[in-house]
Amino acid sequence: MPKALIITGEGFEDIELLYPYYRLLEAGFYVVIAAPEKGRVTGKHGYSVEAGASLDEVDPREFDALVLPGGRGPERARVHPRAGEVVRHFFEEDKPVAAICHGPQLLITARVVAGRRLTSYWGIRDDLEAAGAKWVDEPVVVDGNLVTARYPPDIPLWMREFMRILEKRGLLAPYPKD
Amino acid sequence: MPKALIITGEGFEDIELLYPYYRLLEAGFYVVIAAPEKGRVTGKHGYSVEAGASLDEVDPREFDALVLPGGRGPERARVHPRAGEVVRHFFEEDKPVAAICHGPQLLITARVVAGRRLTSYWGIRDDLEAAGAKWVDEPVVVDGNLVTARYPPDIPLWMREFMRILEKRGLLAPYPKD
Repeated sequence: MPKALIITGEGFEDIELLYPYYRLLEAGFYVVIAAPEKGRVTGKHGYSVEAGASLDEVDPREFDALVLPGGRGPERARVHPRAGEVVRHFFEEDKPVAAICHGPQLLITARVVAGRRLTSYWGIRDDLEAAGAKWVDEPVVVDGNLVTARYPPDIPLWMREFMRILEKRGLLAPYPKD
Repeated sequence: MPKALIITGEGFEDIELLYPYYRLLEAGFYVVIAAPEKGRVTGKHGYSVEAGASLDEVDPREFDALVLPGGRGPERARVHPRAGEVVRHFFEEDKPVAAICHGPQLLITARVVAGRRLTSYWGIRDDLEAAGAKWVDEPVVVDGNLVTARYPPDIPLWMREFMRILEKRGLLAPYPKD
């Protein structure tokens, strides 16, 4: 069974976490949410999810793909001393990564944005450019293993491209036929 | 391009509307949200969406599939005089219908539940049984064209079964390959 990791923290943008979480479950993935502390994590709109792993204990080598939702979660997560190295693993191993909105803040922390073509929420464009990214204002940007998007209305295109990469990597089972 | 209709009203359960909405867009559908009045409709958790059609004007014959999210939206929608007949069209024409949580309230209004095997949020079980349904406590129940589920954690299984039906009906395009 393919495994995906979601990294977040308190104040995540609910739909940016819940959509890929349910979408990957729908596609047959085992999905773990990691946050600075294990236990309930609550989004800006009041939905809560269970962080099954803390950033202290999570082992990124166990996972095939990474999702970085937005909201205030990425800023809460990035100050954890292991956040950068956990994210960086997926780039060192060329595993699929989807990031949206403020999620790319964790890419800066992981020092993986230099020379990368990507997008994000407009408010952190300057940070990404200062870190060396080629930032573009498009609903979805694919650069190798990385799929980025700007905000919730981009979600359908964002996940469509991410699912295509997972399919190309052999991580998507076809829907079982009757 | 296949077309899907979502019927709801103020106070919908945000994720039960947003997940199928984005999921169908991801799959290449044209999706219209209908509510008692045209314009912005807001969920319990504060997300808002644009109702592109009022229940007065929507023509169900234009659509290939129907989604009924839960929350308080279905009760707001069902009191509209056309709600029942709009929903009933999808059963008369055997088109795919997905309903979750309080969404099946609209199935009672449409008088289509007698003899049907289905589920819903536990709180409206008695109403569905009184209307003649065979109610079961399972995460997802498929009965012909109808796919029902109980609450948000059932969403991945609910939509997986709904997408399978859309695929069997030839409404799902395969992901374009590079």
